[in-house]
Amino acid sequence: MGGTPQDGGDVTMKFAPKGPTVIDTSSAPSPREGARPPTMADVAERVGVSRQLVGLVFRNAAGVGADTREKILEAARVLGYSPNTAARALRAGSTKYIGVIFDPAHSAPVEIIEWLYAFAHESGYRIVVSALTPIREESEAITEIVGHRCEALILIAPRSSPELLRRVAGQIPIVVIGRGIPNSEFDLVRSQGASGIDSVVTHLAGLGHTEITYVHGVDMLDGALRLSGYRSAVQRLALTEQIVEIRGDYTEECGATAARILLARAALPTAIVCNNDQAALGLSHTLAAAGVRIPADVSITGFDDSRVARLSFMNLTTVRQDPKEVGEAAIAAAIRRITGRGATGTEVFTSARLVVRGSTAVPAR
Amino acid sequence: MGGTPQDGGDVTMKFAPKGPTVIDTSSAPSPREGARPPTMADVAERVGVSRQLVGLVFRNAAGVGADTREKILEAARVLGYSPNTAARALRAGSTKYIGVIFDPAHSAPVEIIEWLYAFAHESGYRIVVSALTPIREESEAITEIVGHRCEALILIAPRSSPELLRRVAGQIPIVVIGRGIPNSEFDLVRSQGASGIDSVVTHLAGLGHTEITYVHGVDMLDGALRLSGYRSAVQRLALTEQIVEIRGDYTEECGATAARILLARAALPTAIVCNNDQAALGLSHTLAAAGVRIPADVSITGFDDSRVARLSFMNLTTVRQDPKEVGEAAIAAAIRRITGRGATGTEVFTSARLVVRGSTAVPAR
Repeated sequence: MGGTPQDGGDVTMKFAPKGPTVIDTSSAPSPREGARPPTMADVAERVGVSRQLVGLVFRNAAGVGADTREKILEAARVLGYSPNTAARALRAGSTKYIGVIFDPAHSAPVEIIEWLYAFAHESGYRIVVSALTPIREESEAITEIVGHRCEALILIAPRSSPELLRRVAGQIPIVVIGRGIPNSEFDLVRSQGASGIDSVVTHLAGLGHTEITYVHGVDMLDGALRLSGYRSAVQRLALTEQIVEIRGDYTEECGATAARILLARAALPTAIVCNNDQAALGLSHTLAAAGVRIPADVSITGFDDSRVARLSFMNLTTVRQDPKEVGEAAIAAAIRRITGRGATGTEVFTSARLVVRGSTAVPAR
Repeated sequence: MGGTPQDGGDVTMKFAPKGPTVIDTSSAPSPREGARPPTMADVAERVGVSRQLVGLVFRNAAGVGADTREKILEAARVLGYSPNTAARALRAGSTKYIGVIFDPAHSAPVEIIEWLYAFAHESGYRIVVSALTPIREESEAITEIVGHRCEALILIAPRSSPELLRRVAGQIPIVVIGRGIPNSEFDLVRSQGASGIDSVVTHLAGLGHTEITYVHGVDMLDGALRLSGYRSAVQRLALTEQIVEIRGDYTEECGATAARILLARAALPTAIVCNNDQAALGLSHTLAAAGVRIPADVSITGFDDSRVARLSFMNLTTVRQDPKEVGEAAIAAAIRRITGRGATGTEVFTSARLVVRGSTAVPAR
């Protein structure tokens, strides 16, 4: 498997939400059927404190003694009391919600989401996610999130026009992940796609490859950034540029189509650099079905280090776009905007690091 | 490619939410920077009607003339007014939210989600989704959804204990998708896993296969149901039972592990029935890398008809678990509970239909 060590359990603990988890698998009695839900007043009565004190504990406010705090949380657990976030948000004026819009069909966003949850909770914010689907448009998801009175909106690889995004940014602070849009209205967080692809090409050249083909998903957001990394590396290493351009889908089908194009030629290159991990899956599957051995005949690389790259049968050399780093930067940018400490658009480039696994080797020829 | 026709564009229209989409790509002016968000009163003033009338339009209430309605929606669009769903829900007493908890790492739930959105909107409800991730537990997601004051909770393939689910069901109506749990507290919606797998085995036997191996993901929810379909079909067709049991992961790695076990034997079966599409991907990738041709050497089948099955290089014969049918049944069950028209637990089995594609063929031997 090779690969890099995964984030350990300590990280899980560190970023676990600080608020109480009211429903758990322990032995809390279930509320009577048909009974009204327990209120803050019920918790206060059980502990023998004021309702206001219970409120302070659930707002994580300072000034409550540790003992009292523990008693209140325990009583809430036993009674099955859950703080009503919607009502609380309205009373407080600020909702403490951050909206996130993503497409679950892509594997990289899914891994970023978990860190958005973690870092938002750490800062006292809650996440409301809205999923894009083939029949559910981004503008619809944006309207929904605005309706939830979120204080900021994080868009992962949004496909809306820059004009629409600017207009929305007039209503609510926006952070865009994974797409470069020159602007001063919102913040950008994206990985160093150019240097990431450059490091992959450099790795392959170091193994002795001289015929290194790049699969360019033309319609992929940030596709141009990654392509530029290939171009600069090839130029620096005095290699010949070999680019297969694929329009439309830029994930599995993109890789499969590129494989068919390459198989139709007289000879395959000795190495193929893909625009992302999912494309590498489609490419390697199609090549393997045609009898091509990986990496004996052809070395293959991806980008993202998503779960696809770590599958045992892929064992893919790739570029790690650290979802934790991306999530942290996005939440930080959102909170800067919410708290008025950020006004003009910022751009954060997160790290993109080569991860060498078993899909690359010295060329046979 | 073969396969079945996809749902056409008319479906998109039919299930588009009925409420106004306030943010769109047309030329609405953006609100002034720093200005307060527009209110219902602003819309009322612009049109010259009462605030109550504007409220009626945004609640989709009957009795508002078409002309007036159009004017109000247009004014809302121009002003950038978005109905505040949270505040409205609190005033109305019922929130009209339905919570959905799912794991985006699995491909089948993602396709069900879009239909949950569609059917909920059609009935005047809104969806709040909460995503599970490796570090985010189901109980945490449940607490969050309860905090959003959802009126019902739909859990897709939940892994929590039946005891926890029963306890939660005492607080909020629950619908469970894709897992059979004998109970009277909540509703179940799952596909006919047994008859689905039976139809696949029958299809393979009809092609002339007699050595049909089943890959059983022991830890998959509803895994036992699918296995029972294999067993009954094999018995009816007087074939020999050949089961590869895989513990732990039941998706891509499950298929890859099964492939390695089968490759280590003296001979491969002529057909392999997988517990789901993702397992079929891992299996076929691993077999192809070992030089096995699909379907010339081995026929392979899946279950779900998720996007994995429809990838051109998979072109997988599978069982279609109709996500639209599942979504419709789940929303119907949730609303029955919310409106008090359902009291005891119901169980709906949705259709599971054989879809023949290119991964199955007559056996070579």
